[in-house]
Amino acid sequence: MSYEDILYRRDGHVATISLNRPDKLNAWTLTMEKEVRSAIEAADADDEVRAIIITGEGRGFCAGADMSLLSAVMEDSDADEAVEKKDDNQVDGIERNYRQKFSYLLRVSKPIVAAINGPCAGMGLCMSLFCDVRFMADHTKLTTAFARRGLVAEHGIAWMLPRLVGPMNAVDLLYSSRNVEAAEAEAMGLVWTLPEDGFLEKVQEWTTQLVTLSSPRSLRVMKRQIFDSLFQDLAESWEYADEEMLKSFSSEDFKEGVAHFMEKRAPKFTGR
Amino acid sequence: MSYEDILYRRDGHVATISLNRPDKLNAWTLTMEKEVRSAIEAADADDEVRAIIITGEGRGFCAGADMSLLSAVMEDSDADEAVEKKDDNQVDGIERNYRQKFSYLLRVSKPIVAAINGPCAGMGLCMSLFCDVRFMADHTKLTTAFARRGLVAEHGIAWMLPRLVGPMNAVDLLYSSRNVEAAEAEAMGLVWTLPEDGFLEKVQEWTTQLVTLSSPRSLRVMKRQIFDSLFQDLAESWEYADEEMLKSFSSEDFKEGVAHFMEKRAPKFTGR
Amino acid sequence: MSYEDILYRRDGHVATISLNRPDKLNAWTLTMEKEVRSAIEAADADDEVRAIIITGEGRGFCAGADMSLLSAVMEDSDADEAVEKKDDNQVDGIERNYRQKFSYLLRVSKPIVAAINGPCAGMGLCMSLFCDVRFMADHTKLTTAFARRGLVAEHGIAWMLPRLVGPMNAVDLLYSSRNVEAAEAEAMGLVWTLPEDGFLEKVQEWTTQLVTLSSPRSLRVMKRQIFDSLFQDLAESWEYADEEMLKSFSSEDFKEGVAHFMEKRAPKFTGR
Repeated sequence: MSYEDILYRRDGHVATISLNRPDKLNAWTLTMEKEVRSAIEAADADDEVRAIIITGEGRGFCAGADMSLLSAVMEDSDADEAVEKKDDNQVDGIERNYRQKFSYLLRVSKPIVAAINGPCAGMGLCMSLFCDVRFMADHTKLTTAFARRGLVAEHGIAWMLPRLVGPMNAVDLLYSSRNVEAAEAEAMGLVWTLPEDGFLEKVQEWTTQLVTLSSPRSLRVMKRQIFDSLFQDLAESWEYADEEMLKSFSSEDFKEGVAHFMEKRAPKFTGR
Repeated sequence: MSYEDILYRRDGHVATISLNRPDKLNAWTLTMEKEVRSAIEAADADDEVRAIIITGEGRGFCAGADMSLLSAVMEDSDADEAVEKKDDNQVDGIERNYRQKFSYLLRVSKPIVAAINGPCAGMGLCMSLFCDVRFMADHTKLTTAFARRGLVAEHGIAWMLPRLVGPMNAVDLLYSSRNVEAAEAEAMGLVWTLPEDGFLEKVQEWTTQLVTLSSPRSLRVMKRQIFDSLFQDLAESWEYADEEMLKSFSSEDFKEGVAHFMEKRAPKFTGR
Repeated sequence: MSYEDILYRRDGHVATISLNRPDKLNAWTLTMEKEVRSAIEAADADDEVRAIIITGEGRGFCAGADMSLLSAVMEDSDADEAVEKKDDNQVDGIERNYRQKFSYLLRVSKPIVAAINGPCAGMGLCMSLFCDVRFMADHTKLTTAFARRGLVAEHGIAWMLPRLVGPMNAVDLLYSSRNVEAAEAEAMGLVWTLPEDGFLEKVQEWTTQLVTLSSPRSLRVMKRQIFDSLFQDLAESWEYADEEMLKSFSSEDFKEGVAHFMEKRAPKFTGR
């Protein structure tokens, strides 16, 4: 499959999606949005893929919405184009939370790692909040950007950011629109920093180790448990955990999880 | 307008409310409560005001409820006087959360900054938790105070404190009633510290810069988005964000937000 | 009362429950589970007890589920034995959250302190998350353990861990199954560390001071307020706080709380 605004490759069990408009610091376009979604679906359906990395080509991660996207919206009476349609508004309860522009990432059955290699702003930051974890190169900066443009807290950031860094840091980042250095973003609990030199390789190593040492089946169930728990009370979450615990006892990965431990060897998980 | 237990002044776009019973470390009275509410409403209605600071005169911020308030309650069979009546219990859904003694601060359309210049205890601390952000002079202390008086977690602190600093820190602060130094309160994420020397001036500078560089319209919408999100699921919050995003595209502040950026000059936002 | 897999003792106002299978690093058995619950109920009913510590005998805290427990489950078609039955599924609303395997600890009327003296894994970690606070000896480690065994996020950890350390740290700890040093667990806000030397004595001192300086009545009401607030909106929590505030004004502990302060002497709270 060939893409226009992204690159897609797989190394072993790890797929990497690169936003690929380096001369525009990978500013977000509608084409990019559709292609990222398509690549994520392909990676989700590919049994060889156990985790997905999203990063940017060149020196940027994502500079936010491309001006072409904003211009189209402002000139077009049909401004709805800017708001990616949900798959289905008829879906009930908890699932509606996963049908928004970026929140579908939380429903993918594999961990998604944001590798923030360069400047990260606006819509690019919003997208990264719906990845499982965020690494950030230690030389770069991020910003919400909206308040200095006269815009609002777009695309789920008003909900997710307070849950990741607490309400006061969310207020600070959203109200001020200021540039935040990697070290400060790490202190807030928003990202983990890594040196600029060899950044993507280190993220890939971390991800490869994760899907080698941990059961892909465990990761799949845990991802659902952790994010569903944001919309459940404790009793609902616990009952789901009990159901899944009983199922896990008859899985291949549990047998292997005990066997490799007893035999003091590296695990060979199948994800079943 | 003249007040008894507070001072009110406006400098440029920033209003400052000072609790003004310095010989009592600004212990909270019913008069003070009514006057703070009245001053907040005046500031909210004044188009020149874009942000509000709450601080204390003299060496204290707020020592908690005044003994006169407690005595009145204990001697009075009509103890309800201590519980400021909600505006209206008929209000539905999410709005009820904003009709409590201090939580109306979260519904004000402008950022509210607590400038904790000196000792901050009990009811004074509760009030500060419903400001958008909290600065604290680095020489001073805060305490919940209740458990050593045989009291309970009053005025919303049992709900807001765990969301600001996590459940374990909330347990610690509420159960122990201990004095917490500014540096420790900052490490918990409860406040940002500033030097005692020139404290209020620095808070005013920070606030002035905020309302100069960021669109007042953006701040107004974002404040509602962030605090509403505490009572919404992700889908509800996202749908509200989409509606507000489309509205923002036709606002004056968005036009200015793009124009000042393109023209590389300071913004002149109107809040419309 | 004599126990098989735990020890129980009371010193002054503090009860200590020790998991007592030191040669197995206190791996969790069904007997241990029943005995902990029984000891907690006894401590809750004993007016002399004002706080409870849970720790481990020997060099471990709790190594997770005993292999005998797992084997029984896997060989037994009636795997339900592994899932401790809830007291009552007919219970309504908020109370169902407190009827799970470990969450009943949140409904005990006295603070419960986990004293993690040595390795803490899997089910042992899950249990500790439902204590009010966690101390950890600075030489030891904890791990979720599940993902490397092919298991899921068991026993409420998928719900509680994100609320204690944020979603990204929860993802890290659950997905990776890695060993976490005490200092890192403290930086995440999961535990407070203390030196290995004299560890339990220091936890007992902290706990004794807590129940001496703070009103047991206040602690009882606050514990309910803080954890209920995780399942309430702000208005519900505030209304409950107002009710409890009015009740506290006529309590013995409030009279004593004011009296000892006025008389500048140590408090003598009764818990009434």
